[in-house]
Amino acid sequence: MQNTPPSASSTPARVALTTGDPAGIGPELLAKLLVEIAGDSAHDVTVFSTADELDRAFQHAGLVSERRRVEQSANVRIVDTGFDFSGMPVAAASEAGGKWAIDHLDLALRAHEAGEIDAVVFAPLNKSSLHLAGMHENDELRWLENRLGTRGTVSELNAIAGLWTSRVTSHVSHRNAPMLITAEKVASVARLLHTYLVASGVPAPRLAVCALNPHGGEGGKFGTEEIDEIVPGIAAAVADGLDVTGPFPADTVFLRARDGDFDGVVTMYHDQGQIAMKMIGFDGGVTIEGGIGVAVCTPAHGTAFDRVGKGTAALNSMRNAYEIARSLAAASESLTVR
Amino acid sequence: MQNTPPSASSTPARVALTTGDPAGIGPELLAKLLVEIAGDSAHDVTVFSTADELDRAFQHAGLVSERRRVEQSANVRIVDTGFDFSGMPVAAASEAGGKWAIDHLDLALRAHEAGEIDAVVFAPLNKSSLHLAGMHENDELRWLENRLGTRGTVSELNAIAGLWTSRVTSHVSHRNAPMLITAEKVASVARLLHTYLVASGVPAPRLAVCALNPHGGEGGKFGTEEIDEIVPGIAAAVADGLDVTGPFPADTVFLRARDGDFDGVVTMYHDQGQIAMKMIGFDGGVTIEGGIGVAVCTPAHGTAFDRVGKGTAALNSMRNAYEIARSLAAASESLTVR
Repeated sequence: MQNTPPSASSTPARVALTTGDPAGIGPELLAKLLVEIAGDSAHDVTVFSTADELDRAFQHAGLVSERRRVEQSANVRIVDTGFDFSGMPVAAASEAGGKWAIDHLDLALRAHEAGEIDAVVFAPLNKSSLHLAGMHENDELRWLENRLGTRGTVSELNAIAGLWTSRVTSHVSHRNAPMLITAEKVASVARLLHTYLVASGVPAPRLAVCALNPHGGEGGKFGTEEIDEIVPGIAAAVADGLDVTGPFPADTVFLRARDGDFDGVVTMYHDQGQIAMKMIGFDGGVTIEGGIGVAVCTPAHGTAFDRVGKGTAALNSMRNAYEIARSLAAASESLTVR
Repeated sequence: MQNTPPSASSTPARVALTTGDPAGIGPELLAKLLVEIAGDSAHDVTVFSTADELDRAFQHAGLVSERRRVEQSANVRIVDTGFDFSGMPVAAASEAGGKWAIDHLDLALRAHEAGEIDAVVFAPLNKSSLHLAGMHENDELRWLENRLGTRGTVSELNAIAGLWTSRVTSHVSHRNAPMLITAEKVASVARLLHTYLVASGVPAPRLAVCALNPHGGEGGKFGTEEIDEIVPGIAAAVADGLDVTGPFPADTVFLRARDGDFDGVVTMYHDQGQIAMKMIGFDGGVTIEGGIGVAVCTPAHGTAFDRVGKGTAALNSMRNAYEIARSLAAASESLTVR
């Protein structure tokens, strides 16, 4: 485990940006973000796209008049990937859109491997498009894990309003989740959350761990995973020097976290954290692909096909994804745990 | 299934009140409630307690000066149960407290069986006290079910800010919940929620049903309970003429419900609903013991031993429990479903 705080480097983090699914609101969010940061030397971004896609992105964002200024800014580098954008659907899932999203994300990762950028932000992907394009993994994180050959623990992390979560299980059935909860996994996912919080600028993160069962199992009455796995997992993380407490019944721990008692919550299954986090705030949420040795972030929302091209898509989540990626960038090499 | 709307009776609903665990904040909440409604002919309450317990209740509430007025009000009937209150602990779980809570609740149910009251509200119970007193059921609802010989479907219902939930499974382990989710149970728990919402004054309740698995199972990729049980259960409820839609992924359906798209949400497991409901509002929540043929309600919060006797315990949930019990009282006989 690495606890390196973010370096106070004088040069800004170099962040790669991709448009995600080109049929969704991703391209117009990218355009909005570029308009905000173009010309500000605190920012250094590299955009992987094409002239055609950017034409549409700035049109959809209602920001055509800003495009020239953005492209002439010294802190915005646009890499024209030369991919064929002709006939790319709007506001619909497609194989072409899925392939575009994957191929551009891959180019951003290559740029990281070549040492040219420090972090990656991709705009929202569309699961149907990805499946049509042949992605067989259950989620983007598994794809990234395979693409990068990650060996350590990975977990999708979620952040909203300063509160972060990690997951011991994620895109698996309710029925299968308990079998995947081990003390080792609880400890490593706590370490992962700690590592990311430190990297993002929280020097001594206070972590809570959720119970799996209602009322925390009531001493084994409604399930024994707390006793058998979660408590030993917490003990292992504490033995490493982490500030980790629990297990807490899941229906009240998020109230305490929201009220500032904790910086992060280790969840046992997908909806446990996601129900709470989306109640805290849908707009502004960020997904962080945790444990892959490079800072990769994306807005928590989807492609919102019903809002494409209306200029109304809110930038909050995309902006927050970019800001978190920047904060993590200096620590990218430490973003793995055993 | 009964759809009888609440009758516009000219005589107020007769509501029995008990103090719950005498060591908690229940007695003082009862005193506060009595002070609010004493002398108002729109209310008709019967309190099961003792002079000693009420002494302490009004002291803890800081309302000793109001007691005489309350006891002389025509609309407040106090039944002195003659139980021995001497040495009753304060702010601690005990066998005596658990036994007191059970015995007084039992007296209220007897009064209902004798036709003397229409609904019951009990102040918060304490699970440890109940266990010490020999309650072996997993929760109060199972105890009530056994006590009353209920044959139909039961479900704990939760209400906060006008939104209600019911549960297909409740106090069981995460691991066992999927086995208990059947199409028949989904349909009957939807009917139960519909029945209670109608009885409480919502003429045409709009119900949403949660999926069990993350992302609603993604077409069977992460679990098949949606396909095998939940969708057929919804279809059965719809065939009965209910307005029921779903299954919806659980991490977004509560946002829609909170924003007014639904009056009720059928949940698949305890924390699915409770995480969301407690994020919507901890203060003011009500638990309704659903399906037992008599309106029985209680505040959603606990005995709050750390706040006993400070006069600071908020009345909101107790008041809301009383108001929901009143609204359900006229329809008590219809509060069962097959």
